[in-house]
Amino acid sequence: MNTKRHRMAADDRRSAILDAATTLLTDQPWEDVTVAGLLDAAGISKGGFYHHFTSKDDVLAEVVLRLSDASISAGEDSLSRCGGTAVERFSAFLAHSARWELSHAAKIAAIVRMAMMEGNGPLFVKLGEESARRCLPLFKALVRDGVAQDAFCVVDTDLTAELLMHIGRMRWPTFLGARRIFADGQRDAAWRMICDRVRVEEGLTNRLLGLESGTVTFPPLTEYWLVLDAEWQNEAP
Amino acid sequence: MNTKRHRMAADDRRSAILDAATTLLTDQPWEDVTVAGLLDAAGISKGGFYHHFTSKDDVLAEVVLRLSDASISAGEDSLSRCGGTAVERFSAFLAHSARWELSHAAKIAAIVRMAMMEGNGPLFVKLGEESARRCLPLFKALVRDGVAQDAFCVVDTDLTAELLMHIGRMRWPTFLGARRIFADGQRDAAWRMICDRVRVEEGLTNRLLGLESGTVTFPPLTEYWLVLDAEWQNEAP
Repeated sequence: MNTKRHRMAADDRRSAILDAATTLLTDQPWEDVTVAGLLDAAGISKGGFYHHFTSKDDVLAEVVLRLSDASISAGEDSLSRCGGTAVERFSAFLAHSARWELSHAAKIAAIVRMAMMEGNGPLFVKLGEESARRCLPLFKALVRDGVAQDAFCVVDTDLTAELLMHIGRMRWPTFLGARRIFADGQRDAAWRMICDRVRVEEGLTNRLLGLESGTVTFPPLTEYWLVLDAEWQNEAP
Repeated sequence: MNTKRHRMAADDRRSAILDAATTLLTDQPWEDVTVAGLLDAAGISKGGFYHHFTSKDDVLAEVVLRLSDASISAGEDSLSRCGGTAVERFSAFLAHSARWELSHAAKIAAIVRMAMMEGNGPLFVKLGEESARRCLPLFKALVRDGVAQDAFCVVDTDLTAELLMHIGRMRWPTFLGARRIFADGQRDAAWRMICDRVRVEEGLTNRLLGLESGTVTFPPLTEYWLVLDAEWQNEAP
C-alpha cells in the first residue's frame, strides 16, 4: 500500500515530467534545463526518466507536440459545439483559437523564442512540420465546408488551407517582437504591432476565402491586449 | 610557367569543386558522393579541398545558395531590362523566373528531392531560410512598386510578398510528385498536376495582388511541358 502511494503509475510519471518541462520552459532557457532538474521538478527518481524518454530534447519534442495537439483538440471541440453558417463557424474557430493561444501565450512564446534561437532551428523544423501536418486537416475541413455551402470562393481548397495555417503560425514571431518592444518600455508601439498584425491577418483571411473584408472576423483587439498586457507586466524584464 | 598552367587559381579551384558537385548532385544521391569523388570530378588534388570547404555538406550549402543567388540575379536582371506597368513587370518577372527555373530543373529537382529525404530536413532548413532571406527583397520591391502605381491593391505589402514567395517555393514538391507519376508511365496525370498547380498559383497571385484573375500571367503551360517532358524523357527511370 505504502509503495503504491509513493510510486506514480508510468503514465503519471511521464505526464509529471512533461508538466515539469512545460513549466521550466517558460522560466529558464531550455539549454539550462538538465535531466536532473527535470526529475527534481517532477518529483521523480532518476531511474524513471530513460524509461519514458531517450533524451532531454525528446521531452521537448513531446512538450511541443502535446501543446500543438491540445490546440487542435480545442479547435475541433469548439467546432463540434458550433452551428451556424460557414462564415460563423470560421469566425468562431478563429476566436476560439486566438483565445486558446492567448491563454497559453507564455508557453507558446517560450517555444517560439527557442525555435528562433541560433542553432535551434533544425530541432524545431521537424516539430513544426509534424505539428502542421496534424493541424492542416482542420483548416482543410473548414475551407471545404465553406466552399460546399457556396459561402467561400477560393482559388484552391488545399493551398488556401495551407496558406491560412501558414499565416497563423507566422503570427507568433511578430508577437514576440512586440513583447521585446514592450519590455523596452514602448507600450504603444507594441500595441500597434499587435493591432496591425491581427488586422492584416483578418484582411488576408477574407481575401483568400473570397470574402469582403470584415466578413470572417477575429476576436476584438482588446482581448489580445488584455491578456498579453497582463502577462508581460508580470514577467521579469 | 608549367606550374602556373597546371595549378588552378584558388577561385577557380573553388568553382571547379562547386561545378563538379552540382553535376554529381543530379547524377547520384548526395550521400553517395565522397570528398575524393568530388575532387576527382573537379580534377583537383586532395590538399585543395579543405582550404576551401570545411566538409562535404559545406559544399552542398554553397551549391544551393549559388543556385539561389543565380536565380535572384537573373530575376533582377530581367527586371532592370523590363519597362512597362507594374502588372507587365510582374508578369515578365514570373515568366523569366519560370524559364530560368525550368532551364535549371534537374538541379532544382535534385535539391528538392534531397531536402525531402528523411533526415535531410535540418540540413536544408537553414539553407531554405537563407535563400528566402536573400530572395524576399525582390518580391517586396515588385509588390511595393505595384502598390505605389495603384496597380496592386494588397492587404499588406510585406506579408503579401512573403506569401507569394512561399507559394512559388512550394511549387517544386508538386513538380517532383508529377515527375514520379510520369516515371510510372502516367504522362497525362503528370501533365494535369503541373497544369493545375500553375493555374492555382496564377489565381492566388492575382488574388493576393487584388487583381482580376488572369491579369498577372504565368508563361504558357506548354512551356513547362516542353522543358519537363524533354528532361524527364532523358532521365533513367
